[in-house]
Amino acid sequence: MEVRNKKFIAELGKKPRLRKESGLYIIDGPKMAGEIDPKDAEEIFVTEDFLSSPHLRECERLLREKPYSVISPSEMKRLSDTVTPQGILVAARQKRYKGMAGFMEAVLSYGKRLKAEPFMLILETLQDPGNLGTIIRAGEAAGVTGIIADELTVDLYSPKVVRSTMGAILRLPYYTAADLKKTVLSLKNGDHTGGIGLKVYAARLDGAVEYYKADFRCPCAVMIGNESRGLSTELSDTADKGIVIPMPGRTESLNAAVAAAVISFEAARQRTGR
Amino acid sequence: MEVRNKKFIAELGKKPRLRKESGLYIIDGPKMAGEIDPKDAEEIFVTEDFLSSPHLRECERLLREKPYSVISPSEMKRLSDTVTPQGILVAARQKRYKGMAGFMEAVLSYGKRLKAEPFMLILETLQDPGNLGTIIRAGEAAGVTGIIADELTVDLYSPKVVRSTMGAILRLPYYTAADLKKTVLSLKNGDHTGGIGLKVYAARLDGAVEYYKADFRCPCAVMIGNESRGLSTELSDTADKGIVIPMPGRTESLNAAVAAAVISFEAARQRTGR
Repeated sequence: MEVRNKKFIAELGKKPRLRKESGLYIIDGPKMAGEIDPKDAEEIFVTEDFLSSPHLRECERLLREKPYSVISPSEMKRLSDTVTPQGILVAARQKRYKGMAGFMEAVLSYGKRLKAEPFMLILETLQDPGNLGTIIRAGEAAGVTGIIADELTVDLYSPKVVRSTMGAILRLPYYTAADLKKTVLSLKNGDHTGGIGLKVYAARLDGAVEYYKADFRCPCAVMIGNESRGLSTELSDTADKGIVIPMPGRTESLNAAVAAAVISFEAARQRTGR
Repeated sequence: MEVRNKKFIAELGKKPRLRKESGLYIIDGPKMAGEIDPKDAEEIFVTEDFLSSPHLRECERLLREKPYSVISPSEMKRLSDTVTPQGILVAARQKRYKGMAGFMEAVLSYGKRLKAEPFMLILETLQDPGNLGTIIRAGEAAGVTGIIADELTVDLYSPKVVRSTMGAILRLPYYTAADLKKTVLSLKNGDHTGGIGLKVYAARLDGAVEYYKADFRCPCAVMIGNESRGLSTELSDTADKGIVIPMPGRTESLNAAVAAAVISFEAARQRTGR
């Protein structure tokens, strides 16, 4: 059984479908492993060396509360997709919400802890794992309270996304919507926020208003489109307003993750009071 | 001779030292190749297919003014470090300035075309090629007028940096300083800007002032430190002011490239008038 498990774990990092079916994903390294709720850890692997390393402390609670298997460094290398594995690897359970209602409950309670109105990012068909990870990490730092993506967006649980969120994936509510347009309309309608609809902005190269002139202090959301095509017209048309990042320089080219981060921190600036 | 050249070109993408000694670097694909000044193209390679592709148009002037070699797709694959080469690859001459004086002349003339006072980024020991590329690309878009880095920063001309700048590397003045502290002091002193010194900000987690309360409308520069260690105390101490990006979210972690982009676009916001 242990052998079957190891092969399964090795494939979990590589196959989005396997992650979807099993509801599991890989957490690699002590920093993130130490942060998960032990009850979400399905399988834990450590090397002998790790058990006597200074990083053991970060994962003490996890290893006290859950059984783990000690494996050789070469076995660890086979399970991990990093060049230099850090001695601990966990197959963890993905966060699941009971539909949009359950997700929005999490968004509101997350916002409550920040003492903030909902501020959400809505991602359409983001393709690059590094971009998605950067958006989640920067979004969390800027006080985003939840992220929604369509099913064509790169898998949240791919090892590269997980790594580049630097742990934000464990904290920030994230939801994959089967029908993004319908979901946006329900946000605008306030279906899960007691009838108080979110104001929805679309980030566009031809947006009508400079992003810093849009009001982000109210409950709101910003839609970010695909790296090369931008937002689809169909989705963009649902927005209350198109916003643009003016570029005084000699180019009009901006990475999707940078655009999302710049807008998120402008929202943070407005919300923290200036 | 042609054979020697191809081996040399293949190594040029891999060896920073070879790039430094030869003063050459690799430009891969029609978009950037079509943008370089033909006189900077030292060697040009194309595939047969490229010569009948729609992308030929982008590089028409280059191929009219300069000789090129037609090579097979498999030879192209050996020269390029991308998985799917786009049919044209150029060994181009790196931009060189006559010391700080020559560089600052380029910065001022670049600023003049933007009708903008100098706004510079100063990078200390940036390690990640993707980060450096993102900083240059976002910086250009935001109206940064020049970038200075120390010698420990990742090579500007590595293929990954070049690619991720999306062409900004061809336009934005960039300088590698042997002594970054001395260079910053000369900027503050106005040594190459007619005695008008630049105001220098240090981006720090413990900065005294929120970045959006700093004045970026004057001639100024922002120092960004290494991804994990931040700025060295020695360099940071030369700054007029430490600035911080407040993070209302549940983390204090921000990627160096995102931090640079957020500050650059705040400067753009102030400079374009709000």
